[in-house]
Amino acid sequence: MIVEGKNAVKELIKAGKTIDKICAQKGDKMAEALAFQARESGARAVFCTKENLDKISVTRKHQGVIAYTTDFVYSELSDLLTGKEDSRLIIILDGVEDPHNLGSILRSAECMGAAGVVIGKHRAVAVNETVIKTSCGATEYVKVARVTNINDAIRALKDLFFKVYAMDMDGEAIDKCDLKGDVALVLGSEGSGVSALTKKLADRSLRIPMSGEIASMNVSVAAGVGMYEYVRQNAKK
Amino acid sequence: MIVEGKNAVKELIKAGKTIDKICAQKGDKMAEALAFQARESGARAVFCTKENLDKISVTRKHQGVIAYTTDFVYSELSDLLTGKEDSRLIIILDGVEDPHNLGSILRSAECMGAAGVVIGKHRAVAVNETVIKTSCGATEYVKVARVTNINDAIRALKDLFFKVYAMDMDGEAIDKCDLKGDVALVLGSEGSGVSALTKKLADRSLRIPMSGEIASMNVSVAAGVGMYEYVRQNAKK
Repeated sequence: MIVEGKNAVKELIKAGKTIDKICAQKGDKMAEALAFQARESGARAVFCTKENLDKISVTRKHQGVIAYTTDFVYSELSDLLTGKEDSRLIIILDGVEDPHNLGSILRSAECMGAAGVVIGKHRAVAVNETVIKTSCGATEYVKVARVTNINDAIRALKDLFFKVYAMDMDGEAIDKCDLKGDVALVLGSEGSGVSALTKKLADRSLRIPMSGEIASMNVSVAAGVGMYEYVRQNAKK
Repeated sequence: MIVEGKNAVKELIKAGKTIDKICAQKGDKMAEALAFQARESGARAVFCTKENLDKISVTRKHQGVIAYTTDFVYSELSDLLTGKEDSRLIIILDGVEDPHNLGSILRSAECMGAAGVVIGKHRAVAVNETVIKTSCGATEYVKVARVTNINDAIRALKDLFFKVYAMDMDGEAIDKCDLKGDVALVLGSEGSGVSALTKKLADRSLRIPMSGEIASMNVSVAAGVGMYEYVRQNAKK
């Protein structure tokens, strides 16, 4: 993935991530210093003009340095809140353990234009190689914040006037609920769903209408349906 | 899974499926003969009254014999068309190769009350142990027809006035399309989607509205979204 900006690249080097290539602006002393530092750890360092950096920049805020890493780099929760103005969708995963499910959810989140995905540090799978592979390239684009406490993240989003909905079998039908505007959808673990405390913290619970004997979909399918319903309701008429 | 009726159980024995237990109606010569035959291959044979069979019967058409098998038993396409009268949903898989995807699709199909799933015999995964495990028990309830030619199945459904829609990135937005009544949704393989001939045979192509860089969801998530939209549109108001 591409990491841009002096601080972000500095953090990358500090964290010991594998940098394949680093592009620094000629004459920018600090950018050049970062490039030399990365080269010591095996990165290919390229020195170029500001115009060339502008061309390859994705964020347009490269500050003279762009690095390419194969390792996944997490975002902060606050990073998920920049960008889109009118309606933002954040997916919060409360304990998803299967890397295939996480990869599939990241893929759907990218496809459906979600602002990002929040995962917990404990009792949950991290973005590993299987996740990256299953995501079919989505980890290059979708922001993932890894937080110590899911419930603190929910509280922070509620303070920002996000509607927080837990997806749960006992909730109200999702198509009957207003999903317009800033929304966070919480999905639970494969085995036990959304935890009781988290469910209580959410504004309400939503269910996908079902009629079979099993009445429980795979979590990545349920997440996809939730995102679809969000996009459907927020589509410009 | 439970197999009921003289012909179905006869086929089961003929196909060499593993029968754990067979219940036959006392005094029904043909049912008793089937039980003896199954017992020779290691099944536990139980002879009981019609009332007892009525109690354990799922279909209420046991004809004096009910067998329990651990092997998956496919249905005929015509078996998928019995039961629900007003609106039936059939999922047609045009070359899904990953057993996890098939298992997840069968699970969703069961949850969403689909009439059944059609898979091809060639270039597609069959219902194997991984599929059964991933389906979380759905293979006990959902009917799967395994056909030689997907396109013949589509023609047969069109003759019965099913609307046949191919899910494809270039189609019209699924939420803008009328999915009421009898519908067959066609999903393509992980690598190449719905094949050109099949797409041509379908009444139209539908897409899930997307906005990201990747613009292609996992096939089991796409199937789940399609089934959800079908259920949403067909829900009794």
